[in-house]
Amino acid sequence: MRSIAIIGVGLIGSSFALALRKAGFNGPIIGVSSERSIEAGIKAGAIDRGVTLEIAALDCDLIYLSQPIEQILVTLQLLGGLVKPGCLVTDAGSTKKMIAAKAAEHLPPASFLGGHPMAGKETRGAETADADLFRNRPYIITGFDSTNPQTVDFRCWLHAIGTDVIEMTPEQHDQTVALTSHLPQLLSTALAATLASEQSHAVSTIFGPALIDMTRLALSPADVWMSVLETNSNAIKKALDAFEKTLMRLRDNLECGEVAHVFEEGRRFASKIRTLP
Amino acid sequence: MRSIAIIGVGLIGSSFALALRKAGFNGPIIGVSSERSIEAGIKAGAIDRGVTLEIAALDCDLIYLSQPIEQILVTLQLLGGLVKPGCLVTDAGSTKKMIAAKAAEHLPPASFLGGHPMAGKETRGAETADADLFRNRPYIITGFDSTNPQTVDFRCWLHAIGTDVIEMTPEQHDQTVALTSHLPQLLSTALAATLASEQSHAVSTIFGPALIDMTRLALSPADVWMSVLETNSNAIKKALDAFEKTLMRLRDNLECGEVAHVFEEGRRFASKIRTLP
Repeated sequence: MRSIAIIGVGLIGSSFALALRKAGFNGPIIGVSSERSIEAGIKAGAIDRGVTLEIAALDCDLIYLSQPIEQILVTLQLLGGLVKPGCLVTDAGSTKKMIAAKAAEHLPPASFLGGHPMAGKETRGAETADADLFRNRPYIITGFDSTNPQTVDFRCWLHAIGTDVIEMTPEQHDQTVALTSHLPQLLSTALAATLASEQSHAVSTIFGPALIDMTRLALSPADVWMSVLETNSNAIKKALDAFEKTLMRLRDNLECGEVAHVFEEGRRFASKIRTLP
Repeated sequence: MRSIAIIGVGLIGSSFALALRKAGFNGPIIGVSSERSIEAGIKAGAIDRGVTLEIAALDCDLIYLSQPIEQILVTLQLLGGLVKPGCLVTDAGSTKKMIAAKAAEHLPPASFLGGHPMAGKETRGAETADADLFRNRPYIITGFDSTNPQTVDFRCWLHAIGTDVIEMTPEQHDQTVALTSHLPQLLSTALAATLASEQSHAVSTIFGPALIDMTRLALSPADVWMSVLETNSNAIKKALDAFEKTLMRLRDNLECGEVAHVFEEGRRFASKIRTLP
């Protein structure tokens, strides 16, 4: 890995570039993005300069797609005719199955590795990029092939920047994040939207910290979520169905002891994810 | 209001006593509770001594019920034959309709005022009592009668300790907290319990801050919630039905623009409750 192109110079792409620099990568890092993002990325020290996708594909042996999912899908198609042998394309999209399928359709075999850094901030743009954004966070890779020197090299750099690398299939990934990320988001949004539709003024004044906690995710703008939901709708529907079943188990037992069992199961899980290393 | 009995000397009862002391109340404050709680309450400076309910009813002109709901219901029944004229009984239970009905059944007219301080901590007991626990928090009162000098006096003390006093009917209160407190709790518990039942190990390792936020309430032990859910089951079922409808609106539109409207409604509400004074 000697030269890198960041496609989509936002928070994730810029943070990834800064993390590589901090870990000792000293080859060129160039960017493909809007004029405004290129300027911000140069100012943040994340990229050296801005180029076109054609030049990026010609000059670099790692192409890092840190765009919104729907743009990653378009870029993969465009890269089809551009990628040179020995170049690795990887992405940071938060769903993996449709992206992996698109890559398989358009890119030469063994030139794609799916990726999902489980990290983020509520801000956007290179302006708030952070070299330690990925440190101690899970970084999921899909379709890893240990006989491919490009992917092995990339994986070494993921270790070097301090991530916790986890291998999964695209399907396992999408099913897991449907439950641990997409379901919580939809519950928060649905809770806030339900209370928004109540006529009573009291629901926006009579509340405690519980409601603040449970509606924080609802502050997320729709645009970043649209393509996540669209590209993972089957797994999300399965997650919603499982949730519905549990909620009905509570609803139908509000006046009896069965509720205590559901509370106990929930309490154990909530404790467990707080005590894991 | 010259002498006060705190029935149930835990976090809420002790904090209320400390708040009154801080605001200048200098009459006796006695407690009715378990031996252990009385000791802790005296040590915390919340109460002067422990007595029986009979003596409390005889000696005091304010009786403050800060027990779990099911015990408040029992105490109201016991107080029926004990309360002397001019004594005010009030409670800090987190549902109001069943408590108000029980009070109406057993206590003399005009001797009861329902209350719900919207404040708390994750700890319990007089050991962590805090004179400022109620400061700047809503304190809902139900069945307030401005012609009754006892309730007017009590309300003045609520102002003196810095609470934001809000009058509601017991029904309005219970419907509101079903939406702003009980629904969020059930969603957090159901989310954690749903993930607990997943066979995949990945759901307890592959997650971000979103899941931590959304499962914090699920850490609550069942025992404090059982009587809340039981005494407010109708309003909670209505809240769950409204939530279900919104969730289905999301589920059925994951691949289309309608989702963006629900996100926008949710985002507006989540912003609104964060910007209110």
